[in-house]
Amino acid sequence: MPKIVDHEERRARIVRAMVDVIVRDDFTGVTMREIAAAAGYAHGAISRYFPNKQALLVAAFTHLFTEGNYRVADETRELRGLTALEAICRSTLPFGEAGRENARVVTAFWSYTDLDPQLRELQRSNYLKWRELYRKVLMEAREDGELDEASEIEAAINVITLRSVGWQMHTKLLPEQTTDAAIEADLQSMLTELRGRRQK
Amino acid sequence: MPKIVDHEERRARIVRAMVDVIVRDDFTGVTMREIAAAAGYAHGAISRYFPNKQALLVAAFTHLFTEGNYRVADETRELRGLTALEAICRSTLPFGEAGRENARVVTAFWSYTDLDPQLRELQRSNYLKWRELYRKVLMEAREDGELDEASEIEAAINVITLRSVGWQMHTKLLPEQTTDAAIEADLQSMLTELRGRRQK
Repeated sequence: MPKIVDHEERRARIVRAMVDVIVRDDFTGVTMREIAAAAGYAHGAISRYFPNKQALLVAAFTHLFTEGNYRVADETRELRGLTALEAICRSTLPFGEAGRENARVVTAFWSYTDLDPQLRELQRSNYLKWRELYRKVLMEAREDGELDEASEIEAAINVITLRSVGWQMHTKLLPEQTTDAAIEADLQSMLTELRGRRQK
Repeated sequence: MPKIVDHEERRARIVRAMVDVIVRDDFTGVTMREIAAAAGYAHGAISRYFPNKQALLVAAFTHLFTEGNYRVADETRELRGLTALEAICRSTLPFGEAGRENARVVTAFWSYTDLDPQLRELQRSNYLKWRELYRKVLMEAREDGELDEASEIEAAINVITLRSVGWQMHTKLLPEQTTDAAIEADLQSMLTELRGRRQK
């Protein structure tokens, strides 16, 4: 009887090994053989799923993005408006050790998007997907009267995404100054700005 | 009589060619010979100044950062406080075609900083230099009573730098949505936030 191989599980394991390798080392110099070893497979097993490093990099990107999107969708299912926005930001800003680790992964990936049009397109479509999500909760916030009346949706989306991208880079460049307290202060300041609470 | 060679001029010309090559193409695959050709020199002439691509990349980074710092210092010499801050932001945010081009150069360089500790250190020290400049003008703003009393200097520095980094990435990912009007709206919103005008 032939051995049953869970191809999805194998693919996932290889992709996770790939993400680890990218974070720990520099991907450029890493061979397919080394990635296979990190995943615990022979070189032949890995090339069956991913013919080259490019294919693996695309898979790792997609995995990371999808995972992040699912996690946030899951955590905000019951929420709407600014409450949903705050939950999204708590999940995506580099809070805690896990958040900092994630920011390191994300910025490591940025390094490859300039070198490769396919990866850049992935990064771009992921960025647009996040902006859509922010648009959705901001529209809800406006409906519910939570938003500053002077605030425009497109400008508010920028306020959120620019800060989010900024914190990723900040985490990479100044890890010692990336504290939960600093991020929390910035998040509160952003929410205050959106609520326009000061006008009252 | 030996021909007089302006070595500084040669170095500068090679570095500028290098910056062009990075923006236009992918640096990874470019040879020293091609960079020499772009600068209008023979291969031998370039390796006399820069033994390898790594040395050239460091020089190009340093050139870009220094140029930006000088330009801003020059434009804000007579200004202080929030007026100086606004002038700095006008000079560094991706306003106009020149600003957009600069953002493309900057994000192209980011791609190399993860792959190389020396370049990452350059990026980090440049980031710290900008934060120092923001600290200086924010302290002046506080002295002159321009700042929201509730605003803390460190948090305000974050508000500025996160946005600035965010706009660079935004320009790269969504060039069609990077308009002067959008940047201007964001700049004004930031200045309002720092002034805490709404409290009055």
